[in-house]
Amino acid sequence: MSATYAESRGSVGIVSTQYFTFADEPGTEMPLDSGETLGPITLAYETYGRLNAQRSNAILVCHALSGDAHAAGISADESGPSAADIGFGAKSDGSIDRRRLGWWDNMIGPGKAIDTDRYFVICSNVIGGCRGSTGPSSINPRTGRPYGLSFPVVTVGDMVRAQKKLVEHLGIERLLCVTGGSLGGMQALEWAVSYPEAVRSCIPVATTARLSAQGIAFNEVGRQAIMADPNWRNGDYYGQSPPSAGLAIARMIGHITYLSDESMHRKFGRRLRDREKYGYQFSTDFEVESYLRHQGNSFIQRFDANSYLYITKAIDYFDLANGHGSLQEAFRPVRARFLVISFSSDWLYPSYQSKEMVRALRANGIDVSYCEVQSSYGHDAFLLEEEVQTRMIANFLAHTAART
Amino acid sequence: MSATYAESRGSVGIVSTQYFTFADEPGTEMPLDSGETLGPITLAYETYGRLNAQRSNAILVCHALSGDAHAAGISADESGPSAADIGFGAKSDGSIDRRRLGWWDNMIGPGKAIDTDRYFVICSNVIGGCRGSTGPSSINPRTGRPYGLSFPVVTVGDMVRAQKKLVEHLGIERLLCVTGGSLGGMQALEWAVSYPEAVRSCIPVATTARLSAQGIAFNEVGRQAIMADPNWRNGDYYGQSPPSAGLAIARMIGHITYLSDESMHRKFGRRLRDREKYGYQFSTDFEVESYLRHQGNSFIQRFDANSYLYITKAIDYFDLANGHGSLQEAFRPVRARFLVISFSSDWLYPSYQSKEMVRALRANGIDVSYCEVQSSYGHDAFLLEEEVQTRMIANFLAHTAART
Repeated sequence: MSATYAESRGSVGIVSTQYFTFADEPGTEMPLDSGETLGPITLAYETYGRLNAQRSNAILVCHALSGDAHAAGISADESGPSAADIGFGAKSDGSIDRRRLGWWDNMIGPGKAIDTDRYFVICSNVIGGCRGSTGPSSINPRTGRPYGLSFPVVTVGDMVRAQKKLVEHLGIERLLCVTGGSLGGMQALEWAVSYPEAVRSCIPVATTARLSAQGIAFNEVGRQAIMADPNWRNGDYYGQSPPSAGLAIARMIGHITYLSDESMHRKFGRRLRDREKYGYQFSTDFEVESYLRHQGNSFIQRFDANSYLYITKAIDYFDLANGHGSLQEAFRPVRARFLVISFSSDWLYPSYQSKEMVRALRANGIDVSYCEVQSSYGHDAFLLEEEVQTRMIANFLAHTAART
Repeated sequence: MSATYAESRGSVGIVSTQYFTFADEPGTEMPLDSGETLGPITLAYETYGRLNAQRSNAILVCHALSGDAHAAGISADESGPSAADIGFGAKSDGSIDRRRLGWWDNMIGPGKAIDTDRYFVICSNVIGGCRGSTGPSSINPRTGRPYGLSFPVVTVGDMVRAQKKLVEHLGIERLLCVTGGSLGGMQALEWAVSYPEAVRSCIPVATTARLSAQGIAFNEVGRQAIMADPNWRNGDYYGQSPPSAGLAIARMIGHITYLSDESMHRKFGRRLRDREKYGYQFSTDFEVESYLRHQGNSFIQRFDANSYLYITKAIDYFDLANGHGSLQEAFRPVRARFLVISFSSDWLYPSYQSKEMVRALRANGIDVSYCEVQSSYGHDAFLLEEEVQTRMIANFLAHTAART
């Protein structure tokens, strides 16, 4: 257990992010769920492995709130999409520069769960994001200035609609699988429902068909923290000091919800930072305080506050049953087989929500495997529990591929 | 169930807050755990019921983070210590003006759990607070200006040391009981350990002998939100615009932790506010967002941001075992009998922490009753679960009093 997966098993090596632009002719703008339209749209994406001759081995991996297109391998761009701290608080036991590693590198690569010797893997940054895809920090071609809040509100449905264009651009009609954790899992679910003919299997991980009131509440407080920062200037801060203080607060709130009570206890407990006794002042006393401040401060280096607003809003809006009467009804068109994974200590996307999803899928006669992984890592578990996920996902993909 | 407890059962009626000042002569300052001293000290307090001739029927009630001395009855001061929204999100099903009701009025009064026909009840605002007791917003007599951050950091031990002076001032040597929820429960525990001869019984409710890393983390993010507000000005904002935006964020974070996933689901679910469809903008869509904004905005009307910093820091520092080697060792001097109450859905002060406390008390041969109340209200349950608490507390107090 001394070597990391990236070392002991294969790596996809040095990778570069690519860009695909569409909806760039007048009249070709993409319609959005809000009724507005968006164009031109650029998607930042990466691919790993090779598309086979039948074009039947493509897997789309979707990222979480703060992730990006750089899912695996080592980024060619030293200043570009960073890594280990993307998504959530990943382990830091590797001996190579983890900051340039993809956010799901322990799951994607030669011989790994999503085996790039067998599959062609695509990952793209969501629209509304700030890691190369069109979002509020992009230049609005109609004004020559960044969109800011004039960027239309986007939904998970819109994110997936844009990804569909990319997948078509890559010449793929049917995906072997769509997968992802958290917001990535929401996208996987949306794919299976919106494009049933294009999805042969779906692996939603640590996710839900609709966020709870508690989840909405945490996102809302994060947004309020950003919007309360005077530097936010109603979203029009580009070229000036960004609302870093507010964004750091939002990130700190998020981080607490990604861990569990137990994992925080194990990781920090009540240990003090660089001192033996209480300091009796408002500087950092406890290790956990230092950790949170670090997470907040490193996040603001690489993430745009407006994107945080847009993406959390998309998460809040996501409700598969919306417009269908029930979740069971929403799943009716689905043709994919499913592997649903949740984690016992994940209180942000609790297992009972995955179980609801599984019941609604099974009520439609859909082939579903479900596993609640026993883990103390909380929501972060989808990034950290390599072994059990590798076993389940590798088998599920092989079984799906064999049914061609 | 249509009438509130305050109507269907007795009320202590109109009450006025009183004030007790001590440590006001040079050289009489009170020593603090930090090594600093504080004086003069004023405590705002209220009393209900009558002290008997033997002075043996006094019960000290201790308040939570945002509570105050006004625990029961209707405040004589219309602008003073408010009520129903003090502490936590109390029910609003009463027909009288609940804003002037004490924060534990459903538990304190004639015929109630803490029966003012039988007992003499005292409640005082903690030092470091902003509801009449000496705190960072008080005038520092040495400078003629508000303390701000020059106010010394205080601990739960210091809060209790000041309360002891008040109890002595009222002519009481031994308290029949010390009780309180949350931070109030921490104070009750501290009393039983620090003044074993002065405490005949102790009812810590929804509390812990030490806050978890997760609890510290939530408090720290709240503090960061306040300190990130430019209006905070390193605590020196009195007479100017206070850091209301930051304080509102801190309060919203707190509120989420006071409720449970289940109670938020029941109370709000994914219901929309004043609309039938998503608004596709960053104004309020969901009921839960509206609730949080209201809680944040009403809190800033009545609470001082610096007090929020000081009191949360006292909560974080509280660790009964600190300096004793173990919790069991810390409880060794205790002479009080105990009733420990926790709530099944309270994830901020989870039941496993109360059980640790109970085990450590029993290991010392201390008489302990323990009840984990099945409730969906989360941490707020100590303010809302009237019936079960009334039954347990009334019996426990009667039994304790009978042992005189």
